Amino acid sequence: MKEVGVGIIGFGTVGAGVAEGLLKGADLITRRCGVTVALKGVADLDIETDRGVEVPKTLLSTDALALVARPDVAVVVELIGGTGIAYTVVKTALEAGKSVVTANKKLLAEKGEELFALARAKGVDLYFGASVGGGIPIIRSLRDGLVANDIRAIYGILNGTCNYILTRMAREGSGFDAVLADAQRLGYAEANPSLDIDGFDTAHKICILASLAHGVSVPLDQVPVTGIRGLDPVDVHYADELGYVIKLLAVCKAHGNRLEVRVNPTLVPKDHPLASVNDVFNAVLVDGSMTGDTLYYGKGAGRAATASAVISDIVSVARHVASGTPREAEPLPPLAQSGKALLAPEDCTSRFYIRLMVREACGMVGRFATILGDHGVSIFAASQHEATEAQREAGYVPVVILTQPAREGDILAALTEITAQGIVRSMPLHMCML
Amino acid sequence: MKEVGVGIIGFGTVGAGVAEGLLKGADLITRRCGVTVALKGVADLDIETDRGVEVPKTLLSTDALALVARPDVAVVVELIGGTGIAYTVVKTALEAGKSVVTANKKLLAEKGEELFALARAKGVDLYFGASVGGGIPIIRSLRDGLVANDIRAIYGILNGTCNYILTRMAREGSGFDAVLADAQRLGYAEANPSLDIDGFDTAHKICILASLAHGVSVPLDQVPVTGIRGLDPVDVHYADELGYVIKLLAVCKAHGNRLEVRVNPTLVPKDHPLASVNDVFNAVLVDGSMTGDTLYYGKGAGRAATASAVISDIVSVARHVASGTPREAEPLPPLAQSGKALLAPEDCTSRFYIRLMVREACGMVGRFATILGDHGVSIFAASQHEATEAQREAGYVPVVILTQPAREGDILAALTEITAQGIVRSMPLHMCML
Repeated sequence: MKEVGVGIIGFGTVGAGVAEGLLKGADLITRRCGVTVALKGVADLDIETDRGVEVPKTLLSTDALALVARPDVAVVVELIGGTGIAYTVVKTALEAGKSVVTANKKLLAEKGEELFALARAKGVDLYFGASVGGGIPIIRSLRDGLVANDIRAIYGILNGTCNYILTRMAREGSGFDAVLADAQRLGYAEANPSLDIDGFDTAHKICILASLAHGVSVPLDQVPVTGIRGLDPVDVHYADELGYVIKLLAVCKAHGNRLEVRVNPTLVPKDHPLASVNDVFNAVLVDGSMTGDTLYYGKGAGRAATASAVISDIVSVARHVASGTPREAEPLPPLAQSGKALLAPEDCTSRFYIRLMVREACGMVGRFATILGDHGVSIFAASQHEATEAQREAGYVPVVILTQPAREGDILAALTEITAQGIVRSMPLHMCML
Repeated sequence: MKEVGVGIIGFGTVGAGVAEGLLKGADLITRRCGVTVALKGVADLDIETDRGVEVPKTLLSTDALALVARPDVAVVVELIGGTGIAYTVVKTALEAGKSVVTANKKLLAEKGEELFALARAKGVDLYFGASVGGGIPIIRSLRDGLVANDIRAIYGILNGTCNYILTRMAREGSGFDAVLADAQRLGYAEANPSLDIDGFDTAHKICILASLAHGVSVPLDQVPVTGIRGLDPVDVHYADELGYVIKLLAVCKAHGNRLEVRVNPTLVPKDHPLASVNDVFNAVLVDGSMTGDTLYYGKGAGRAATASAVISDIVSVARHVASGTPREAEPLPPLAQSGKALLAPEDCTSRFYIRLMVREACGMVGRFATILGDHGVSIFAASQHEATEAQREAGYVPVVILTQPAREGDILAALTEITAQGIVRSMPLHMCML
């Protein structure tokens, strides 16, 4: 039985879970894969704090680059995070001809092009299965299971913190700030929650899935991102009445050579499979040209689930090392060189939910319909809602309009015109509908 | 770029889909995997009938074994079905040192031990990803994505015909025979539907998943199987009232060295992710020791979805052929030699739904509760239902009892005693609850 040595850099939550999983699962892994995966060491600046896992002290060290350089370490697992020492570790490992496993979305987003090119040049693997969806094998399914499919669309609920907040707002009718504060108290949201609630984490992940699906490197900074910060509970309530739940949805749709990639709060019909994905769970719906819709669901984060994905990568890479043949990563040319381009946000088409705050509702729906119609937007449904106390005090009542499929640019132009006419309190809110 | 030659044996629905997919997707596959997969030929006794796909006549032949023997064919794809010529083709290919891809559940169930041993001895691959779940990459996820996990439980809706019938019965309140006849007319059920509706197809599939999850060969003939034939719409109705839907569920649960593997109609709570799997869709819920619950959902059958899974296997095998290293299949020792055993059906524990037809309901629930209690079974809920017209005419009214978790053996003993007392029309019906 061939043995492949593994070094883990970073002994945080996930690092400790991976170390424990490799040690506890050694026999299982060997039996299932025909390769012995041997943990040679774990490096971290702090090797004193108790991580609550059974990892022998003798495996711990503080010198990351020394562990990377060890001749008996063939696979380097980077679990530090960030783009500082993590970048040095990954680059050093690849340059030394070692395969790398990482869960570092930020590193992939900022340095991915360089690092994947280096891995290809050196003939080694750079695996990143834990970077999206935690324990859900979505990256593996896209790369292998759906290899014969043109990927027509991907819809993902990819951030557990946002989904937890949205689930509680829908269940309890609570306000955003109160639920966020509670989520922070319970450890479901960071003290600085921006990366999650402003949609950037979700954007990182859809870029990775879009890149895999379409064989190009999709640049994060060109993806329009709207998070859930400040979502008004009245919209959660109106969506519910209309038969929808609001989810932070990442979307990647192919329109010929144009890719629509975006992150938005979106109204999802209650009978859609993504509507019942609640709490911290993640799910990804993939529409393949041969399979049609397939859906993948599970815990998107947490020590053990993420460690499961990292170990799955380690095992695949170890198999390649044992047989002397790396997977040979698909080239991911920059989008600009690929003949493809991102669809401009204003050209994205969707049904839209629009909420307008008007001083007098009488006759307003007809007036809005006329202005929307002037911009080529048809109305599917419209309703005036009873004002909340705060709304009554402010002297405004809400009107909700659902549109037929329309260009977002046309919606914006119509809403700008409505706002300019002074008949609404402020620029109306609009959200995509699935 | 290395080229790997593929020969397809069987030009039926799936065979035609695979041939078309390989030809149309050739560039995509090459780009994604770094290997050129070249279709060398398709063999079938009938090469005249139009399959509605664009496959050049020059690729078609009637001599299967000649195609298998061609030196430029390294991967043989068996899509004939059955255990006659299919067995000969697979065995001949493996003996010639060629890797094989098949979707043939029956062949795996009856000849799997011999064929997997042969593949291991010859150092080639025998892949079967399309045998369970159609286009859903569930086998790949179990083998690779969840490789670090002890698989604690698998719950599967694995037969599209049954799920279609159950969905329509629940939606329309229709009777089993009427929906089955309609499904046959629409092509969703075979003229001889036994393999599907009596649960055997589902049993084949859970045996494959159980074998993969636990590294033993689980024998089909030891798995208790109950299908959905003759399911009474009143039970669908009562289940609905109680907040459940009835699904034909395949279960594989680990209890130490005892494996519980069975197929039963089961009451699934409406808020469970499996409850919303409708029509011909399949889904598999896997409870892994590290991931917790993950769920995989999609079309379980159909030309393109099944072809997608077959091509995914072909690509993996072709990569191994190109690199000269087969996956090295995990040995699957017969259950009897593994130190594991199947849990006896009577030792399986579940909550149960029991429907009894009684002549007079008055005082009966108490009497049933006493008898159930004597056998160690506690009642969770009980209700007497208004009799249907037919029931009234027959002079019986239905009583429904839901139990706390109980051994099925105890349930059966209690129901036998109840029946012997002559207070019910016939042996009461009981079904598992998830």
